[in-house]
Amino acid sequence: MTFPGPSTALLTDQYELTMLDAALADGTATRRCTFEVFARSLPHGRRYGVVAGVPRLLDAIARFTFDEAEVAVLRGAGAVSERAAEFLDGHRFAGDVSGYPEGELYFPGSPVLSVSGTFAECVLLETLALSVLNHDCAIASAAARMTTAANSRPLIEMGSRRTHEEAAVASARAAYLAGFQATSNLEAHRRFGVPTTGTSAHAFTLLHDTEADAFRAQIEALGVGTTLLVDTYDITQGIATAIEVAGPELGAVRIDSGDLGVMAQRARAQLDGLGATNTRVVISGDLDEHSIASLRAEPVDAYGVGTSVVTGSGAPTAGMVYKLVEVEGRPVAKRSSSKESRGGAKSALRRHKPTGTAVEEVVHRLDADVEVGEHDRVVPVPLLRKGEPAGELPSLDESREHLRRGLVAVPWEGLKLSRGEPAIPTTFVL
Amino acid sequence: MTFPGPSTALLTDQYELTMLDAALADGTATRRCTFEVFARSLPHGRRYGVVAGVPRLLDAIARFTFDEAEVAVLRGAGAVSERAAEFLDGHRFAGDVSGYPEGELYFPGSPVLSVSGTFAECVLLETLALSVLNHDCAIASAAARMTTAANSRPLIEMGSRRTHEEAAVASARAAYLAGFQATSNLEAHRRFGVPTTGTSAHAFTLLHDTEADAFRAQIEALGVGTTLLVDTYDITQGIATAIEVAGPELGAVRIDSGDLGVMAQRARAQLDGLGATNTRVVISGDLDEHSIASLRAEPVDAYGVGTSVVTGSGAPTAGMVYKLVEVEGRPVAKRSSSKESRGGAKSALRRHKPTGTAVEEVVHRLDADVEVGEHDRVVPVPLLRKGEPAGELPSLDESREHLRRGLVAVPWEGLKLSRGEPAIPTTFVL
Repeated sequence: MTFPGPSTALLTDQYELTMLDAALADGTATRRCTFEVFARSLPHGRRYGVVAGVPRLLDAIARFTFDEAEVAVLRGAGAVSERAAEFLDGHRFAGDVSGYPEGELYFPGSPVLSVSGTFAECVLLETLALSVLNHDCAIASAAARMTTAANSRPLIEMGSRRTHEEAAVASARAAYLAGFQATSNLEAHRRFGVPTTGTSAHAFTLLHDTEADAFRAQIEALGVGTTLLVDTYDITQGIATAIEVAGPELGAVRIDSGDLGVMAQRARAQLDGLGATNTRVVISGDLDEHSIASLRAEPVDAYGVGTSVVTGSGAPTAGMVYKLVEVEGRPVAKRSSSKESRGGAKSALRRHKPTGTAVEEVVHRLDADVEVGEHDRVVPVPLLRKGEPAGELPSLDESREHLRRGLVAVPWEGLKLSRGEPAIPTTFVL
Repeated sequence: MTFPGPSTALLTDQYELTMLDAALADGTATRRCTFEVFARSLPHGRRYGVVAGVPRLLDAIARFTFDEAEVAVLRGAGAVSERAAEFLDGHRFAGDVSGYPEGELYFPGSPVLSVSGTFAECVLLETLALSVLNHDCAIASAAARMTTAANSRPLIEMGSRRTHEEAAVASARAAYLAGFQATSNLEAHRRFGVPTTGTSAHAFTLLHDTEADAFRAQIEALGVGTTLLVDTYDITQGIATAIEVAGPELGAVRIDSGDLGVMAQRARAQLDGLGATNTRVVISGDLDEHSIASLRAEPVDAYGVGTSVVTGSGAPTAGMVYKLVEVEGRPVAKRSSSKESRGGAKSALRRHKPTGTAVEEVVHRLDADVEVGEHDRVVPVPLLRKGEPAGELPSLDESREHLRRGLVAVPWEGLKLSRGEPAIPTTFVL
C-alpha cells in the first residue's frame, strides 16, 4: 500500500536541489554517477547490522515525483532557479539501484545500496534513501538482538507510543522482520500484514468498580484465552482474582511493573498452586535485550517490548551515509582526515566455511576479478533497472526467514550482546 | 495541511480496541472519564521539557475517523467483535481536550494534556496522543538546550537523513519551535512554513574535475553570498580556492570534519588574512549541545546540527504516559510500587517572583481552591470542546516566541546543560 502522502519528493534536504541547480547550469548534471550507502562503523560496539526498509524505500522512490504542487513549493521557497524548476516538472528516477536484500546482515563498509544514473537523478535521493534505511535498519538491528536474547520465547512489539506515529508503523514492521512475533500497531497490520495482538491496560481495570468486574468483562468479551493485566493494585491478589474469575484455563497474566524476575517466579508458583499450570506469564515494562537475557532462567512465557525496540536500544539511527563513489567510470572519494571513504562502485561477497558459518565480508570493486568459492555468496541483488522494479521482492515473511538463517550462520561470538568487534571482519579488495 | 494519510485511526494499539469492545459489552464504555498525559520524570537529569506537537495532535485527532476501510481492517485482524465494529463505523472524538500550549515548559507531573469524554472515545486516543507528544517534545526539549548553548548564534537543523522520513518533518518543525533558525527539510516548509536553507555536499565537489570548478559552478548558480563546503580535500587549500574563485565577498565557508574548534580558528585567521573579514564560518559534523557550548569561544558564525537533534540527544522519547485519572467524577489511580500515579483531573499554576522568574509548578485538582497570585499563570488552555476546536491556535512563530520568553523566566541554574534537578520544583496540591 502506498501510504502516506501523495509525493515523497520534498522529504529531501534543500541542498540536493541547489546542487542539481548548479550542476544543470554547468552541464555536469548529466554525468553518470554511482552513489553508495554504507555504515562506516556499527553503533556502540554492535556485532552486526540488519538491513531493513528496502521495500519501503522502493515504494518511496516510485512516489518520488515532482508535480506542479512540489515545484510550486520549491519556487516559493526560493530553493531552485527557473532552470531547475523546469527540469523537475514531471521528473522521475530512471536509474539503476541494487543493494543488500531485506533481512541481510551488514557490517562496516558493506555496500548496502548502490544507486547509478545521472548526477541529477541520483543526488536527489540522498535524504529519502538514508531516512528510510537509517531508521528501519536501526530498529531491526536492535530487535534482532532481542530475538537472540529471548532464545525462542515470543516477543511482542508494543512501542508505538514512544516514537513518531509513522515511525511506529515502520518500527512494527522492522521488529517483525527481526523475529518479533506480533505488534500492537494496527496500521502495521493494514499496510504490511504484521500480526497484531493486544488485550487491556490498567485503565480498563480502573474504569471498573472492582478488579474482578474488569476481569469478568474482559473474559466475557475476549474469552478465557485472553491475557489479564494483574498489577493494577496488588499482584498476588490480582492473580488470585484472575483465576477465581477465569478459572485455571486462563490464557495468560501480564505483569508490567516491579522486579520482573521475582514477580515472574512468584506468579508462576501462585498459578501452579491454583492449578493454572498452562496459564502463561507475560512480562512487560522497560525491557531491553539485556533485561530479556537476564530473565532467561525465569518462568517467563512471552515478553512485551516497547521503548527500547522503537528507539533502537541506544542507537536510534544506523549511521549510514550516501556517498558519491564514481563519476563517468572514474572512482572518486573525499580525502578527509576523520571520515575515510573508498572510491569506485562496489559489490560484496560473504565467505563461509563448509559448515555454513560466515567468516568474512569481502567488499570489492564491481569489476574486480574475485573468486566466488563454493560456500560464498554474492550479497547485493538488483532492485531497480531504469527506474523499474528489477523483479519481484521477497515477502516480509521470506525476508524474516532470510534473516533467521543469516543469524544462524554468524559465528557464536558474533551473537554476544556485549560490545566488541563486528561478528566477521570486512576485507576491502579495491 | 493534512499530511499524511487519510485516517489516523489505525495509528493505534490493538488493546484500545479490545478494551472498547469489552466496555461496550458491559456498559462501562459510556462512563465519563478523564485521561491525562504527563511525564513521571524528565530524561537524563534534564532541567525542563518543552511541549511540542499540539497542532499536529489536534490535526491527527480531527482525522481520527473509522470509516469502512478502517473497520474492515479491524474485522480482518480479528481485533473487534461485531458490536465494536458497528460502534466504530463513522466514529469521531466528541469530547473535550485541554493542555499546555505549544512552546510551554513542563516539569515532572505537569498535566500536559487532559482528555475528557466517554471511556470509549478517550481510550482510543492513547497511542496517537503519546506518539505525537513523546516524539515532538523529545526533539524540542533537546533543541532548546542547543539554542541555549549556541547563545544567539544561529542553528540549522539538518538531521532528516538520520530519522524516519516523516519523523524528519516533525523534527524540523520542533527544532524551529525551539529556536533553530532554519531546516534543510523541504516538506517542513511545505507543511509548516519552516524556513529552509541548503547549499552543497561533498558530492558536488567530487562530481567536478577540480574543487575550483565546483566552487565556480555553485557561485554562478547561487551567487557569491552562498556557503562553500571547503573540507572535501584539504581545508586550507579549499579556503584559498574559495576566496580565489568567489572573492572576499563570499558568504560563508562550511567545515564538516576534523577538530572543529581548531578548524574554526584557522579558517577565521585565513579568511581575515585574505581580506574576507565578512565571510562567515559555518560548522557542522556530529554537533550536540555540549560540543556547541564548547565552541562558544571560537569564531563560529553558525552551526549545522543533524543526528543529535533529531534523536533527542540521548533521549529520543519524552517518556510521557496517558493515564485514566477520573471515572464519573471519582479519582482513580494505579497502586503500583514503582510507578506512582495521582488520581483526579488536574490543572496547574506556574508561580513566579515579582521579577518574572519562575519558582514553582503547582499541580492541583481541577476543583481545588488555589490562590492565583499577581505573578502566577494558569498553564493549561482549552483545545477542543465537544470535539471541535476551542479557539484559534497560536501560530508556530507565536509558540516559538512563547518558548523564548518561557526560557528567559527559568532560574539561571535551570538552563545549565549538566544533569540535575528540574529547574523548578513541582508541588502537588491534591
